[in-house]
Amino acid sequence: MKASVLFSGGKDSSLSAILLEPFFEIELVTCTFGVLPVGEVARKAAKKLGFPHRTLELGRQVLEEAYVSLIKDGFPRNAINHIHYKAVEQLSFDGNVSAVIDGVRRDDRAPVLTLGQSRSIEDRSGIMYICPLKGYGRSAVDHLVDKHLIIEEGQSSEVIKADYETELREIIYQRHDRNMVEKLFPSHVQSHVIGRKR
Amino acid sequence: MKASVLFSGGKDSSLSAILLEPFFEIELVTCTFGVLPVGEVARKAAKKLGFPHRTLELGRQVLEEAYVSLIKDGFPRNAINHIHYKAVEQLSFDGNVSAVIDGVRRDDRAPVLTLGQSRSIEDRSGIMYICPLKGYGRSAVDHLVDKHLIIEEGQSSEVIKADYETELREIIYQRHDRNMVEKLFPSHVQSHVIGRKR
Repeated sequence: MKASVLFSGGKDSSLSAILLEPFFEIELVTCTFGVLPVGEVARKAAKKLGFPHRTLELGRQVLEEAYVSLIKDGFPRNAINHIHYKAVEQLSFDGNVSAVIDGVRRDDRAPVLTLGQSRSIEDRSGIMYICPLKGYGRSAVDHLVDKHLIIEEGQSSEVIKADYETELREIIYQRHDRNMVEKLFPSHVQSHVIGRKR
Repeated sequence: MKASVLFSGGKDSSLSAILLEPFFEIELVTCTFGVLPVGEVARKAAKKLGFPHRTLELGRQVLEEAYVSLIKDGFPRNAINHIHYKAVEQLSFDGNVSAVIDGVRRDDRAPVLTLGQSRSIEDRSGIMYICPLKGYGRSAVDHLVDKHLIIEEGQSSEVIKADYETELREIIYQRHDRNMVEKLFPSHVQSHVIGRKR
């Protein structure tokens, strides 16, 4: 059976694909609004991991809804969760998909689907929604990442990643300025996969 | 690295071991209070799966605490969660253990550790506590079980399993009667692993 992994080029989605590789036929899927060439960034990372890759275009309306939420809230959590829910939903109803794989970990607060959202998507679409790292804490993820991946880390403003935050930040920059980006998005360490240990 | 899977002979703990087999050195560990020969039941299932197996003796005090809780509540959830927490904790502090694996699924209500209990055990013991099926719903588990395991199913009163419920039921039977067992433990379908598909 095919498993379609929502892929950002980061270590969690990469590790999720590696954990399922012995049991499913993996494809990596990167969501984009077309604001930045994040699909291209992800495609390079996917190639290094050795998995097939495609992009999924999300409707600009979803980005606009996230923008409104971000400006209203003053922090990105709800906006990113909204995009994530819409991405999982759209991929689940893609006719060619049997299982949607989400790289969320046990201790993540965003992006994460609620239990109700998870069940609703499974019930309505008939797909399996699997979060392989949902039962993994930081030390277990770190152990497996160290064993299987080569990554580079940097501040979120410097590492180009194919996640929802990247395009949301860009929209804020285009419509406001650098200061607004820094105000809305707390700086945090991002990781980017640059290879796989075999 | 070694991963010690809490093993009941059921499909969830068996599947957890299979999912981690490509990434860890698996051992199956069955907890027992010595009330019934559940270790022996589990040993046979472990052999069919092809993993090394051992038993872990839990203190009778824990069973007594669960008994008190069960009689007070009138239902087994809190009692079983109490035993489970103590089992995970004892295995985590077993000097020879690096990772404790729990077969809990996304939609399980018991036995399940809270997020706080999970983090507390990791922080205090230094081990990794991993729940490989925590991000799997029923359809995903069913798919993988069907692909990898041969199971038999039956009512919980008929299938001998190496889970906490089995010995707790026996204590209720010894101290009360069959009616009390049926009153406290709702009948439900239990599964028992009898082979592995290769």
